[in-house]
Amino acid sequence: MSGKGKSVLALSGGVGGAKLALGLADTLPPGQLHVLANTGDDFRHLGLHISPDIDTLLYTLSGTSNEVQGWGLADETWHVMEALERLGGDVWFRLGDRDLATHLWRTGRLDRGESLLQVTQALARQLGIASRIHPMCEESVQTTVHCAGGRLPFQHYFVKEQCAPAVTGFSFEGIAQARPNDNILALLRETTLAMIVVCPSNPFVSIDPILQIPDMWAALRDHPAPLVLVSPIVAGAALKGPAAKMMAELGVPATACGVAQHYCDRYPGLLDYFVIDESDATLAEDIAMLGVEVAIAPTVMKNRQDKQRLARFILDLVAGQG
Amino acid sequence: MSGKGKSVLALSGGVGGAKLALGLADTLPPGQLHVLANTGDDFRHLGLHISPDIDTLLYTLSGTSNEVQGWGLADETWHVMEALERLGGDVWFRLGDRDLATHLWRTGRLDRGESLLQVTQALARQLGIASRIHPMCEESVQTTVHCAGGRLPFQHYFVKEQCAPAVTGFSFEGIAQARPNDNILALLRETTLAMIVVCPSNPFVSIDPILQIPDMWAALRDHPAPLVLVSPIVAGAALKGPAAKMMAELGVPATACGVAQHYCDRYPGLLDYFVIDESDATLAEDIAMLGVEVAIAPTVMKNRQDKQRLARFILDLVAGQG
Repeated sequence: MSGKGKSVLALSGGVGGAKLALGLADTLPPGQLHVLANTGDDFRHLGLHISPDIDTLLYTLSGTSNEVQGWGLADETWHVMEALERLGGDVWFRLGDRDLATHLWRTGRLDRGESLLQVTQALARQLGIASRIHPMCEESVQTTVHCAGGRLPFQHYFVKEQCAPAVTGFSFEGIAQARPNDNILALLRETTLAMIVVCPSNPFVSIDPILQIPDMWAALRDHPAPLVLVSPIVAGAALKGPAAKMMAELGVPATACGVAQHYCDRYPGLLDYFVIDESDATLAEDIAMLGVEVAIAPTVMKNRQDKQRLARFILDLVAGQG
Repeated sequence: MSGKGKSVLALSGGVGGAKLALGLADTLPPGQLHVLANTGDDFRHLGLHISPDIDTLLYTLSGTSNEVQGWGLADETWHVMEALERLGGDVWFRLGDRDLATHLWRTGRLDRGESLLQVTQALARQLGIASRIHPMCEESVQTTVHCAGGRLPFQHYFVKEQCAPAVTGFSFEGIAQARPNDNILALLRETTLAMIVVCPSNPFVSIDPILQIPDMWAALRDHPAPLVLVSPIVAGAALKGPAAKMMAELGVPATACGVAQHYCDRYPGLLDYFVIDESDATLAEDIAMLGVEVAIAPTVMKNRQDKQRLARFILDLVAGQG
């Protein structure tokens, strides 16, 4: 990674992506990391605007996330949910007391006319986060999971149904009317952007919604900065979430190779580097045949050091090339 | 109070009115009390639909209110507010954790298209309340306090400014477009309604918003059931809230007599009985000159027995007449 003032744009969904985002934030000079966050999971629930992936990024980057549970905040309490349960209310989406403060803060400001971008960046500042988190767009996009039994809004599939139904496809309601946030387009016009990283997030429900916003993936492809994607599938399994299960149900090999194929088919010319885990080294040749540079690294991030090491590997990968 | 199946309609604002509503609920057969609640204080805050007077009624009638604090729920905790304060959020309107569950429950259902009436009555059932609580209307009406320095939404005046600004008048934004809830109109067509009680609530910001909904006060006046109003001013002071302060600022005598004058001027023919406290017995003659029947009783409700005694007095007052 050469030169000061060079910034990195990372595309991310929730937990898996946020881990690498934290590694990048730790490794880059403060303020040099931009995160482009999926908002296809956003939904209005109990009156509140909930942005699950943005919140996971906020909590992870501020060091307040609950790493044991894998979602939400550390040191959380559940008084509101307990009271709501006593009222017979909807408690399938568990909102902790501290987490609720985030949703109230956000919703109050959105209702007063602030943009999701303004609200997100103000929240990030409030939490002491130097990196910039950019919602992918301002428009409402709803990731919808197509299942044999019908279509489910993402959170219903993911939380209420615990990803049990077999998926047949996905759609992103409202995406045709969405456009990339202006500040993302401005960032993509800057020459100080040194690299674009696609974090190890679910291809179908975390990264596709971002890339399928009209003009988004073409703008990313056309930027001279190299694009590095880290496979979310390691040794045939997703480290977190339903990616591998979805691939199997869609008839795609649930391997890093299947992931690479997905991106190369849908977004030709987008990927420059594809990072796979050491345990998948035997797949390197097949993936390289798709026309991308394959890099092999330990990609499983169990602790903060793992995250920083993977971030450093990615930054060095491109620096070595440059 | 003669006959089974006779019901009572009580008009109420928050704390003072809810005390008498509880006395009436305790005294009448279950389900015979209907409460017509002010919603002019309702507001959207942090994304949530908050109905302060309805909530005070719900919590009081279900025996879960915090009687020491005078508002909110007993055994309340404040985790969400504490977290919101750490985020630099709006915490001037204190929302307890259990109280928040009510607002989330309500807002989620309103957002799904249920009416405020449906939501309120479902909440009441959930809390085990046999009485029916009717929001005065479905439309948004916003009580606005006119002060020397400008106009303030009611909760800003009441909570944020702690009633400090001197008032010059009031308006109820949106009231011209409001109409009485259908079920209230249906109730007023029934002959089983034996009495209408105006609880000791603030005349300007609790009862006026109800009465000034188009057609409301005329419908109450035209019903054959006698209307009994309990003075919220006792010995020149409001037992709770800013009523006496407002009267002084408006140049109206801050006495039970001033209250009676207010109602007789604005709503001629509405009042049949006017109940004053024993300590105001000397005002009886002046009030009677306004053309209303004056009744004298201990009206200060410090405990549940006081509430039941006042309720019994009111019910007997009309029974004795009939």
